[in-house]
Amino acid sequence: MPHVLVINPNANTDVTDGIRTAVQGLAGPARPIEVVGLEGTPYGIESQRDVDAVAGPLAERIAAESDRYDAFVIACFSDPGLHAAREVTAKPVLGIAQSGVLTAMALGSRVGVISILPGSIPRHWRAYRAMGVSEGVVGDHAVGASVAELADESAMGDRMLAVGRELLEACGADVLVLGCAGMAQYRAPLEAELGVPVVDPTQAAVGLAQTSASLGLLTR
Amino acid sequence: MPHVLVINPNANTDVTDGIRTAVQGLAGPARPIEVVGLEGTPYGIESQRDVDAVAGPLAERIAAESDRYDAFVIACFSDPGLHAAREVTAKPVLGIAQSGVLTAMALGSRVGVISILPGSIPRHWRAYRAMGVSEGVVGDHAVGASVAELADESAMGDRMLAVGRELLEACGADVLVLGCAGMAQYRAPLEAELGVPVVDPTQAAVGLAQTSASLGLLTR
Amino acid sequence: MPHVLVINPNANTDVTDGIRTAVQGLAGPARPIEVVGLEGTPYGIESQRDVDAVAGPLAERIAAESDRYDAFVIACFSDPGLHAAREVTAKPVLGIAQSGVLTAMALGSRVGVISILPGSIPRHWRAYRAMGVSEGVVGDHAVGASVAELADESAMGDRMLAVGRELLEACGADVLVLGCAGMAQYRAPLEAELGVPVVDPTQAAVGLAQTSASLGLLTR
Amino acid sequence: MPHVLVINPNANTDVTDGIRTAVQGLAGPARPIEVVGLEGTPYGIESQRDVDAVAGPLAERIAAESDRYDAFVIACFSDPGLHAAREVTAKPVLGIAQSGVLTAMALGSRVGVISILPGSIPRHWRAYRAMGVSEGVVGDHAVGASVAELADESAMGDRMLAVGRELLEACGADVLVLGCAGMAQYRAPLEAELGVPVVDPTQAAVGLAQTSASLGLLTR
Amino acid sequence: MPHVLVINPNANTDVTDGIRTAVQGLAGPARPIEVVGLEGTPYGIESQRDVDAVAGPLAERIAAESDRYDAFVIACFSDPGLHAAREVTAKPVLGIAQSGVLTAMALGSRVGVISILPGSIPRHWRAYRAMGVSEGVVGDHAVGASVAELADESAMGDRMLAVGRELLEACGADVLVLGCAGMAQYRAPLEAELGVPVVDPTQAAVGLAQTSASLGLLTR
Amino acid sequence: MPHVLVINPNANTDVTDGIRTAVQGLAGPARPIEVVGLEGTPYGIESQRDVDAVAGPLAERIAAESDRYDAFVIACFSDPGLHAAREVTAKPVLGIAQSGVLTAMALGSRVGVISILPGSIPRHWRAYRAMGVSEGVVGDHAVGASVAELADESAMGDRMLAVGRELLEACGADVLVLGCAGMAQYRAPLEAELGVPVVDPTQAAVGLAQTSASLGLLTR
Repeated sequence: MPHVLVINPNANTDVTDGIRTAVQGLAGPARPIEVVGLEGTPYGIESQRDVDAVAGPLAERIAAESDRYDAFVIACFSDPGLHAAREVTAKPVLGIAQSGVLTAMALGSRVGVISILPGSIPRHWRAYRAMGVSEGVVGDHAVGASVAELADESAMGDRMLAVGRELLEACGADVLVLGCAGMAQYRAPLEAELGVPVVDPTQAAVGLAQTSASLGLLTR
Repeated sequence: MPHVLVINPNANTDVTDGIRTAVQGLAGPARPIEVVGLEGTPYGIESQRDVDAVAGPLAERIAAESDRYDAFVIACFSDPGLHAAREVTAKPVLGIAQSGVLTAMALGSRVGVISILPGSIPRHWRAYRAMGVSEGVVGDHAVGASVAELADESAMGDRMLAVGRELLEACGADVLVLGCAGMAQYRAPLEAELGVPVVDPTQAAVGLAQTSASLGLLTR
Repeated sequence: MPHVLVINPNANTDVTDGIRTAVQGLAGPARPIEVVGLEGTPYGIESQRDVDAVAGPLAERIAAESDRYDAFVIACFSDPGLHAAREVTAKPVLGIAQSGVLTAMALGSRVGVISILPGSIPRHWRAYRAMGVSEGVVGDHAVGASVAELADESAMGDRMLAVGRELLEACGADVLVLGCAGMAQYRAPLEAELGVPVVDPTQAAVGLAQTSASLGLLTR
Repeated sequence: MPHVLVINPNANTDVTDGIRTAVQGLAGPARPIEVVGLEGTPYGIESQRDVDAVAGPLAERIAAESDRYDAFVIACFSDPGLHAAREVTAKPVLGIAQSGVLTAMALGSRVGVISILPGSIPRHWRAYRAMGVSEGVVGDHAVGASVAELADESAMGDRMLAVGRELLEACGADVLVLGCAGMAQYRAPLEAELGVPVVDPTQAAVGLAQTSASLGLLTR
Repeated sequence: MPHVLVINPNANTDVTDGIRTAVQGLAGPARPIEVVGLEGTPYGIESQRDVDAVAGPLAERIAAESDRYDAFVIACFSDPGLHAAREVTAKPVLGIAQSGVLTAMALGSRVGVISILPGSIPRHWRAYRAMGVSEGVVGDHAVGASVAELADESAMGDRMLAVGRELLEACGADVLVLGCAGMAQYRAPLEAELGVPVVDPTQAAVGLAQTSASLGLLTR
Repeated sequence: MPHVLVINPNANTDVTDGIRTAVQGLAGPARPIEVVGLEGTPYGIESQRDVDAVAGPLAERIAAESDRYDAFVIACFSDPGLHAAREVTAKPVLGIAQSGVLTAMALGSRVGVISILPGSIPRHWRAYRAMGVSEGVVGDHAVGASVAELADESAMGDRMLAVGRELLEACGADVLVLGCAGMAQYRAPLEAELGVPVVDPTQAAVGLAQTSASLGLLTR
C-alpha cells in the first residue's frame, strides 16, 4: 500500500488544490495520495532564489515525515531540494521535472515542453542537460502569459494549444510535457486536440513514486 | 482500474512465471496484471532475427487484445515490436528497456546496465542512443554466464554482484538496471548489497503502464 | 569483381526500376549490380509495421542468395532487417539510411534530410541517434506531398527544392540526403540548383557495398 | 571511369608504396588509382605543425591536378588541408580519417581506433568531435610502438592485435579503424583474428572517392 | 581597477587562508582581491544539503556587498547559489566549477578532474552535463582520502599524483582540474610532474572575474 | 607581470588598431599588452585556405617571440595555428574562438554567436564540436553584411542587433559571442540594448592569457 506525500513548495493554495485534483486518478483506497503546501514559501517559484529558498524547508519536511509515508513528490518543475531530500530519507523522492520528461520519453521519441515564463527556460535547459536527456528534448517554448491570461482559463488554453502546435510543427516533437505543476487541467484537452501524448509532470512523478514505493526502490 | 497485459515474447515459461512473480507487488484487486507468453516464438531472444521475428506476432496479439486491456507491456529488453504495436492500438504500450532505463534516470544520475550476453551489448547501445539517453548511461557490462551458471542461482547472483560492483566503481554508476526480463529475483538482493537503486525493467514498465492507463495517456 | 544485390523491400516495381536506373553509374562489366523487388511485401514502407514485416523476408532472401553475391544493399530508408541480415551472411550488408547519412558526413559538415512523409520523421531521428551521428544532422524536413504531387514529377521537384533551401537557410545544412529510395531522379537537379552535395542513399549504399566487397570487409 | 589521385603528404616512399599496394583491390582498367607522395614534406606527420605545413602544398597540388583526375584522397589520418582543398576544386576531395570512421560506422555500431602514437590521440578526438560522430567512437588507443617495433612487422602485428582486443573487450567496440595511412598490411590479419570489421582508412576514402566521382557528387 | 570578492562558503578558515594564498598571483595594487569565509556555514560542503544551505546566505552576502566590489567568486566546487546570486547583483558572479572546467577547455582538449570524495562525483557530473561540456570531460576520479591523509600534505600529494596519472593514461586527459577549493598548493607540483596544464578552479574563477569586471561584462 | 602579445593574422591594420583599442581595458602598467599584425598575410581570413596559410607564420612568429612575452593570443575567430603554436612554446597560447565561447559559457547557459559571413558557419560549427561544447551553443547566425554595410558602422550595428535579437528569441540564447576579431566596438552597445552578456572573443582570450601567464599555466 504505497502512501505518497506530494508537497507543493509554494504558498499558492489554488495550485495545491489543482494538484490534488490532478492526481486523483492515481489514488485508491489502498493507494492514498496526500497533497500539501509548504508554509512560509513564496507564492510562486519564479526565480533561482525561490528555488534555493524552498530546498531546505522541503528536505526538512520530508525528513520529518519520512516514517509516515512511503514515497515523496516535490511538485515544482525546478525540482528544488530533490537531491538534498534524498539524503535525509531512505524512501524514494521524485522530482516532477525529471519524472515528466522521462515519462514522456517512454511514450514518444522527441519531447517538447510548454513552459509559462520565458525567463525559466535557460534554467530548464540546465536541468535537461544535467539529466542527460537533452538529446531527446527538441524544444521548450514559453506561453509567455500575462497575468490576465493566466487567470482566464480559456485564453490560457488557446495559448497552450498554439505553443503545443508550434512544438509539433516547427520542432518535430511527438510528445509534450507541461512545464509547471499548475497546468494539469489543460492536459486532456491538449492531448485530444493535438493527438500526441501530453504529460502532466506531477501525475508522472506520483506514478513513479507509487511504483518505487510498491517495489522498495531507492533513490539516489 | 488499470488492467495491464504483460507479454513475454519468448517461449520460456519459466521466464513468464518469473515475470508474473516479479510484478505481483504492483498488482491489486483494482489493478489486475496478466502475464502471458507468446506461442511459436523462440525459447530466448538472443539475436536480432529473434527480435524481428517476434515483432509482428506481438503487434498482432496486442491488436487482438486491444479492447480487453488498458495498457500493454512488451517484456523483452530489446523492446521488439514496440513502435509497431503503438500503431495498432490507442492504448499505451511500454517497452521494458526504455522503461527500465528511464525509470533509473528518475532515481539516480548515472545508469549502469547488467546484461547477460556480451553479444547483445552493441544492440543495447543502439537502443540507448536511439532513446536519446546515452549521455546518462555510463556502462553496460555482460555477466557472460555459461549455461551452467545461468541455471545456478547462487553462482549467477555472485556474477551479477561482481558486474554491479564494477559498474559502480569503474564506471561511476549510481543506479543499476537489469538488462533482461528474467533477472527480477536478483533485484532486491543486489540493491541491499550495493546500496544503490536497482531497477527491474519489467516492473518499471508495468508501473509506467499502470500510470499511463490510469491517466489516459497515449503512446507514440 | 564485386557483385552486388540491391533489394527493394516493397512491391512497387516503379521504385525498383528507378533504383536500377539510379545505380547504373556505379555498375560496369566487372561490377554487376542486380536490383530486385521482394514479393509479398507492401506497396510502400510507410509504418513501423511495414518495416518489421519485411525484416524477416529480407534476411531470408539474403541468406538464400548469400553464395551468389558479394554484398547486399537493403534499399529502404528505414534500414529494415539490417542487423538481422548481417547475422545470416558473412558478406557485407549495407542499409541505405546509414550509408546515405554517413556518406553525406564525408562530403560536408552539417547534414539535412529531405523526407516524404512527416510521420516518418520521429522514426528517422531514432535511427540517426542510434547511429551516433545526430550531432551532425541539423534537420529532417518532410516534403509532405499529396498523392497527386508525388505523381507529378515537376511539382515534386519544386517541393523538394523548397525543402532543400529551407534546410540550407534555416538549419544551416551544407549537404543534403534524400530520405527515400525512390527520389534518385531529383538528386542531380537539386545539387545543380542548390550548389551543395546531394546524396541519394541507395547510390551511397551501393558504393559502400562495392568497396566492402572488393576489400573483403565484414559487417556487424 | 573514375580516376582517383591519392596523395600521401609525407616524404616516406615506403608509406606511398604501401598505400599503392593497399588500394589495388579497388582499382581496375576503368578505375585507375594513382598514388603519389608530396615533395618537400616531412618524413612523417607527427605534430600539428606537420599537419599545418602540408595543408597548403596539398591544396596547391590538388588545384594543379584538378582537371586530370575525377576525385582526390588525402592520405594522412589528420586529414590535413581537407577543407582548403575543397575550396580549390569542384571535384570531390576525401580525407582518410573522416572516410575511415564513417565507413566503420556503416559496418558496425561502436568504433574503436588503433593509433600509433599516444600524442596524436587528443588531435584525433578533436577530429571525431568536429565530425559529429564522437558518440559512436568508443575508444582510440595507441600502439605506442618503439622505433624497433615499428620496423618489426611481426612485433607490430602483435601490438596491434593486443590493442584491438583491448578496444573490443574493455571499450565494447564492434568495428575497428586503423588510425594511420601506413598500417594497411595489418588489416586482413586483424579482421581474421578478431572477427570484427577492420577498416583501412585509405581504402575507405578511395572507395568513397570512386563512388563520388562516378555519381558526380560534390564535396563541401 | 577590478575589485574582486572571493567567498569561501564554509567555516574552515584554513581553506579560506589557502585560497587567499592561491590567488595572490592574480592580485596587484590596482587589482585587489579580498577573500572571506561565511559565518554560520558548515565546516565543509560535502552533501547536497550543505550546498543548498549556503546558497541563500551567499546570495544575501553578495547582494549586501554589491556596491563595494566589481565582481564575485563563489569558492566551492559545487557552485552553490551561483544562479541565485546572479539575480541579486548586476556585477559578474563566477562559480569555480564552471570557471575551472571552462578554463581547462581553453588550455587543452580533454579534461580530467581530481576530486576528493567519491560521493561528490555524481553531483559533479550533473554539473558538467548542465554546463553543456560533458563531451569534453573524460573522467572525474576521487582521491578518496582518509582524514589522516588529508592532513598529511605529502601523502595527499602522492594520492593526487596517482589519480592525475590515471586520468592521463586510462582516460586520455590532456589537462586536469582540481575539483575542490582547497587543493591549490598541489597545482604547481602536479603540473611540473605530469607535464600537462593543471587548473586550480578558484584561480580560474578569479581570473574570469577580473576580466569580466574590467570589461563590464554581465553574467546571467 | 604578465606581458601578452596579441597577433592579428591578417594584413588589415584597421582590425589591428581596433583590437588594440578593444583590449585597453585589460592593460595596465604591470600588464602590458602588445597588438601586432602579421605581414604577408591576407587582408581578411575568409576561407579555409586563408586559415591554413597563416598557421605556419603564426607559429613561427610565436616561436621567435617566445622569450619576450608571457602569453600569446591568436586574434582570428578560426583559431588558425593554435595547436601548432602550442608545440613551439612553453608559454600559454590562446585562441579567440575557444576563449570567446568558453568565457560565454561561464557567464550564461546558452550561447549564440553573431558571425559576419554565412560561409564561415560550417567551419565554426566544426570548431564548436571539436571543442566539445556544441551542446551549449544554440545558434550561430551571420549578419551577411554587404561591403557597404560593413563600412557603415551604424547600419552594421543595426544588423548585429537584429541578429542578436533573433538568437535570443528564436534560439533561446542567454549570452552572445561576437564571431570575429573586428567587432569589439559593437560589444557594449549590444549588451546595453539586449540585456544579456555579450563577449568580444579577443578580450576574452587576453583575459585568459593574462590569468594563465600570471599563474604559470601551460597550454596543450
